Amino acid sequence: MKKKVLLAYSGGLDTSYCLIYLQSLGYEVHTALADTGGFTKEELDVLATKAIKLGAASHQVLNIVEEYYQEGIRFLLYGNVLKNQAYPLSVSAERVFQARAIARLANQLNVDAIAHGSTGAGNDQVRFDLVFQALCPGKEIIAPIREKKLSREEEIQFLKEHKVEMNFDKALYSVNQGLWGTSVGGKETLGSNGFLPEEAFPSKVTESASKSIVIEFEKGQPVGLDGKKMKPVEVIKALNALGGSYGIGRDIHVGDTILGIKGRVGFEAPAPAILIKAHQGLEKHVLSKFQLQIKEQQSLWYGQLMHEGLWLDPACRNLEAFLESSQARVTGKVFVVLAPYRFQVHGIESKFDLMNNLFGKYGEMNSLWSADDAKGFAKIFGVQQMIIQKVGEHAGE
Amino acid sequence: MKKKVLLAYSGGLDTSYCLIYLQSLGYEVHTALADTGGFTKEELDVLATKAIKLGAASHQVLNIVEEYYQEGIRFLLYGNVLKNQAYPLSVSAERVFQARAIARLANQLNVDAIAHGSTGAGNDQVRFDLVFQALCPGKEIIAPIREKKLSREEEIQFLKEHKVEMNFDKALYSVNQGLWGTSVGGKETLGSNGFLPEEAFPSKVTESASKSIVIEFEKGQPVGLDGKKMKPVEVIKALNALGGSYGIGRDIHVGDTILGIKGRVGFEAPAPAILIKAHQGLEKHVLSKFQLQIKEQQSLWYGQLMHEGLWLDPACRNLEAFLESSQARVTGKVFVVLAPYRFQVHGIESKFDLMNNLFGKYGEMNSLWSADDAKGFAKIFGVQQMIIQKVGEHAGE
Amino acid sequence: MKKKVLLAYSGGLDTSYCLIYLQSLGYEVHTALADTGGFTKEELDVLATKAIKLGAASHQVLNIVEEYYQEGIRFLLYGNVLKNQAYPLSVSAERVFQARAIARLANQLNVDAIAHGSTGAGNDQVRFDLVFQALCPGKEIIAPIREKKLSREEEIQFLKEHKVEMNFDKALYSVNQGLWGTSVGGKETLGSNGFLPEEAFPSKVTESASKSIVIEFEKGQPVGLDGKKMKPVEVIKALNALGGSYGIGRDIHVGDTILGIKGRVGFEAPAPAILIKAHQGLEKHVLSKFQLQIKEQQSLWYGQLMHEGLWLDPACRNLEAFLESSQARVTGKVFVVLAPYRFQVHGIESKFDLMNNLFGKYGEMNSLWSADDAKGFAKIFGVQQMIIQKVGEHAGE
Amino acid sequence: MKKKVLLAYSGGLDTSYCLIYLQSLGYEVHTALADTGGFTKEELDVLATKAIKLGAASHQVLNIVEEYYQEGIRFLLYGNVLKNQAYPLSVSAERVFQARAIARLANQLNVDAIAHGSTGAGNDQVRFDLVFQALCPGKEIIAPIREKKLSREEEIQFLKEHKVEMNFDKALYSVNQGLWGTSVGGKETLGSNGFLPEEAFPSKVTESASKSIVIEFEKGQPVGLDGKKMKPVEVIKALNALGGSYGIGRDIHVGDTILGIKGRVGFEAPAPAILIKAHQGLEKHVLSKFQLQIKEQQSLWYGQLMHEGLWLDPACRNLEAFLESSQARVTGKVFVVLAPYRFQVHGIESKFDLMNNLFGKYGEMNSLWSADDAKGFAKIFGVQQMIIQKVGEHAGE
Repeated sequence: MKKKVLLAYSGGLDTSYCLIYLQSLGYEVHTALADTGGFTKEELDVLATKAIKLGAASHQVLNIVEEYYQEGIRFLLYGNVLKNQAYPLSVSAERVFQARAIARLANQLNVDAIAHGSTGAGNDQVRFDLVFQALCPGKEIIAPIREKKLSREEEIQFLKEHKVEMNFDKALYSVNQGLWGTSVGGKETLGSNGFLPEEAFPSKVTESASKSIVIEFEKGQPVGLDGKKMKPVEVIKALNALGGSYGIGRDIHVGDTILGIKGRVGFEAPAPAILIKAHQGLEKHVLSKFQLQIKEQQSLWYGQLMHEGLWLDPACRNLEAFLESSQARVTGKVFVVLAPYRFQVHGIESKFDLMNNLFGKYGEMNSLWSADDAKGFAKIFGVQQMIIQKVGEHAGE
Repeated sequence: MKKKVLLAYSGGLDTSYCLIYLQSLGYEVHTALADTGGFTKEELDVLATKAIKLGAASHQVLNIVEEYYQEGIRFLLYGNVLKNQAYPLSVSAERVFQARAIARLANQLNVDAIAHGSTGAGNDQVRFDLVFQALCPGKEIIAPIREKKLSREEEIQFLKEHKVEMNFDKALYSVNQGLWGTSVGGKETLGSNGFLPEEAFPSKVTESASKSIVIEFEKGQPVGLDGKKMKPVEVIKALNALGGSYGIGRDIHVGDTILGIKGRVGFEAPAPAILIKAHQGLEKHVLSKFQLQIKEQQSLWYGQLMHEGLWLDPACRNLEAFLESSQARVTGKVFVVLAPYRFQVHGIESKFDLMNNLFGKYGEMNSLWSADDAKGFAKIFGVQQMIIQKVGEHAGE
Repeated sequence: MKKKVLLAYSGGLDTSYCLIYLQSLGYEVHTALADTGGFTKEELDVLATKAIKLGAASHQVLNIVEEYYQEGIRFLLYGNVLKNQAYPLSVSAERVFQARAIARLANQLNVDAIAHGSTGAGNDQVRFDLVFQALCPGKEIIAPIREKKLSREEEIQFLKEHKVEMNFDKALYSVNQGLWGTSVGGKETLGSNGFLPEEAFPSKVTESASKSIVIEFEKGQPVGLDGKKMKPVEVIKALNALGGSYGIGRDIHVGDTILGIKGRVGFEAPAPAILIKAHQGLEKHVLSKFQLQIKEQQSLWYGQLMHEGLWLDPACRNLEAFLESSQARVTGKVFVVLAPYRFQVHGIESKFDLMNNLFGKYGEMNSLWSADDAKGFAKIFGVQQMIIQKVGEHAGE
Repeated sequence: MKKKVLLAYSGGLDTSYCLIYLQSLGYEVHTALADTGGFTKEELDVLATKAIKLGAASHQVLNIVEEYYQEGIRFLLYGNVLKNQAYPLSVSAERVFQARAIARLANQLNVDAIAHGSTGAGNDQVRFDLVFQALCPGKEIIAPIREKKLSREEEIQFLKEHKVEMNFDKALYSVNQGLWGTSVGGKETLGSNGFLPEEAFPSKVTESASKSIVIEFEKGQPVGLDGKKMKPVEVIKALNALGGSYGIGRDIHVGDTILGIKGRVGFEAPAPAILIKAHQGLEKHVLSKFQLQIKEQQSLWYGQLMHEGLWLDPACRNLEAFLESSQARVTGKVFVVLAPYRFQVHGIESKFDLMNNLFGKYGEMNSLWSADDAKGFAKIFGVQQMIIQKVGEHAGE
């Protein structure tokens, strides 16, 4: 009886190679695509047909958009996670959830092995391996492109030899699309200088006039846009479309790969850019000083673990409990103005706003304390600094 | 013999009131203005004349721009400090240095008391009090506006009674200018929603075409612009002027005051915005992953202490030692493109760039490790996660 | 009609003074004692009788031991909180819970004011004031000892004038007892050098032979001792008694008061000392590296906020959510050996032990990875360090 | 011409095997022992003779005690580093310095390869590999025990075949001695429960009466003992001897290895235990609240990086700059009392003591602030907590 393998399939050159190659090794190859929001129904159908045509024993589309939001994106938003102050972890996060869905299916199909198309150079191999090891401990992991160190040309050569017909032209830009952003690599991102040209980005900038929008949050989750109640995933999709038409959320991420080298990649993430800044703007009004301060540290950790594929570590569950708890009052409206290539948070409205006129307006004399209270506060707040100074002088410092 | 007081004087309504009021109490009032880069020579001359005219026994201008840069701004830049991810601490930082300069002079003049014009509502009173207490421990601190809870109208009334002639019209926007940014308060910042209109900002947007610039850093300090070597303070001034003409660096800061209430203030800080993002862009290429991660935490602390007027705390010296040490390799050029109301870092060039082609290009197969190395790495990197999963299953979790 | 005040009463000189003094001001004085585990039934009865005899309109004992454990101690244990690596926050924590119980009663009794016997020198006044302000915003806070700056002698004089009979002898050591430890102040703690003598501690050391005990934890809570199931509060009481007979958990805490000066106080906390070290010993076996690392930072924050009386800040709720989540697997037995004045954790047993022999023994060659995997791991784990070195040499550093 | 290899040699079974084995492969084997304070002059001579006898082309003893102190231990002490609140990183730290010394010599000798005797199971292989990779990038790393997965019996068999005569009895406890502590492994440390017996520890407990000592620190470094000025390394040696005679500093460390599994090892570290607690006791008196708080976080990082062999990462240089700066006032005497198996810090004396009687005694009414100041402080310190409560009630929370 043939050994069975489940291949994480995306329809590109690398995973097409893997599909043929694994069959040539004698495997019964099952394919699956874990969709995190990067494909249309039509694209998914085309890919399914293609997989079967290339010999897949079965093909499944795993729609994980909702679980990706519920278990991943939601917390990235709670934490306002922007890796290195820039990157919403668009691709990093979705790999973990794709790997988990594939692993789940591998266990259901009772396959002997599990395969992915990652090279040996980057983060993805680690993210896939980590999740597979943890969730499918008995199964062999096969990564043909990594193991055989194949060049693009060698892959094409092999596929042609196996009579595979597909478009072998190399796209100028390699694009990875998902609900939480699109990464874009090209010649400008290979070196340390250079920004992606307009045409590298999948969205087209069509708007020139500025536009005011209102985003509604409930306990940290986006639940409405311009007065219309929507599910969070729908808000994200709508903001990706709208923000994309303004060219919002484009930047270049420079960071440390899990393997220790620096990497540079372009991205376009309109919804994450707008939502994170809006959410953060609301938090500044409704969270305490200590919540803001401590949450900032926690979020750095959450982003770090997510980036390095360690999301299954129970530390992430603990951080999520913290983050969820912190959102109890993050409810209200945020007013944002979009303009070409930029946007501005104009303000918020919330019943939990601590800048509340229950107590008088900021900047004016208020009823919360007297001048003497303020003097007393300043005196005691500075008492240690004063003692330190005095002691130093006395010690002849 | 008359008691002597030194008044931190800025020429506005509040400190003019203080100057007259303190004389009415029988004090010999000396005035001083600590300039952090917010005044022209002409403005300073006018203010000096005015102080003497209002009865100041002496008036001094303390030019502290360079020390403000060397001992404060420099570290804020090393730390990429943006309070609540937005505000470069434009005003917060300068208050501390102004207070220190005033305190130094108070000790030289051997005055009995030291006075400032802060109200009892905001941060400034605390910053002044803290520094005065530590550096002039024997001297009384007088803050007439705070102590007498005066309204604007009462101050004007008092000044008119004392035959003071000055412009008593209230400006629509209260502006505080310094080398590291300008704060702008107005009716839009009193509530939780509303952005400042164009006319509220001191700079005028005159540019519409995008412009490429090159900023040169040496050990973290900006030392050149577009190929011309300059002192750091000169780079900052040039970028304030240039960025101002693009309307860059405008935003609203929402944060916790030292006294526990939330506050909201507009600001315009072109040079800080551009320099911090450029500096950070360079750091991402030349610092190690751990340097970036640890530095981020340190910088939050440094910003927090600076914001709360606790800069004299020796913890700040320790953080500065850390920050200075972290800049050893932050040397190179940063390429930035300015456009109206926004800018983009396009890349960097540095002999310390860790994304170096000594070792092959990112994204391609490299010579640093083999496929087996990568597999081994991933296996061990994920071993704890795998054990945790296994142990949980075994324990029937 | 008389104004009503609720006095937090402990039966000592200070609160006896307050009870008489507040009556002399015309108040109807109600008293309450919030018991955190520091009194016997008999002591509480004596104090109640005394309060009524001194004129209290009513007296209530608020038994808050269980809520103190459930909402406070439990999280201090989860977090292994030892302030400045030494002090289990014995007194700090109980003040907050006492203040909350008193505030609750004040609202029920609908009193006009709320009073406490703290001086103006230390932490307790801040802890009381903070909680009262937040939970009884309309009520006046009266702290007679603080306001009148009374000396001990003046208080005694006043009480004698009012015919109060009580023991006015000053104890050599001031002791504050509660479930989570006893603080002890005396002449040795006033300066910076000196340890408390044997007689200063309430417990008597009666044991000389070492003794093995087994503490059982379930999700981080102590639920059994030496094979006997017990409620957490009972485990704590039993360990306080047992550890006390060995003189375990005695030390001196040096720290920063909320007011900025340094303070020094002796304490005896047998149960906290043993439980925290045992709990931590168990955690080292069942938590991931990242859980341990992140939890350590969180716990510092939780201890800091608790110490400074800021436990009502919602940041504490968020940290508690983190801590609770982190305890999911902190279940098992800890083996401890007690000896006079010290104890040693000998080991643990847990179904969640990650040092599990499912995978072979530590120190021996194991089946989790091969030599090649380890080489690959080390190579990649060190790749950034190597690049940094190389780049530095190349740049002529 | 023969290829040359430098072997890190310790004289035990593993490195003796390597020495013979590498010769059998045709290498000219040079040996070196990097002494971190764990050997007597006599032991070193014996090992040198043995190495030559086993065929080493040359043997060198590298005395790195002083540099180990200056560049490593010193900062571990500044940071009060106890991994997992227990372990002074006795072995972890010395491996890095041994590896560096060996790497330096390898470059001087211009060898082709560099060898160590680590297995594939533990931390040491990673620490050696990391340093060798960074400092000797061109040289092959050979770890025969790891690569050949040899059992103890196979090594002995091989050595006997090669006519090597040495004591092949397995010691009951494997001991690794250095200036900053001795690790001890044995059957009790293989599982999760069990403490090492008296005879497992190298030191013998000979003292029963308690003894007072005085340790003198200057800018954080130990420079005197009982009134006698000494070099830091001498203080450490003296405290190891003295503390060892009391059985002080013995414990079991449970922690995460670099490879992700949990490990457990006994240790005896009298000087680190006493010095760290004494140093910390002094710091509590002379550092500000913020210095203590921030330093605690920094130190966790420094310990973590040192533990994982990443000491060459420039982040360590930055942390060292922080730590060094923090020690400016850590000068004074610490009074410690030793007793069998335990010790107690009794107090300190320092001209920088912030608990200074310049300002009155702690616990008494002081001259630094008034009752009104304290009330005002508490009011404002709690204002945010109060607003949060009020806003919540108003919002119907």
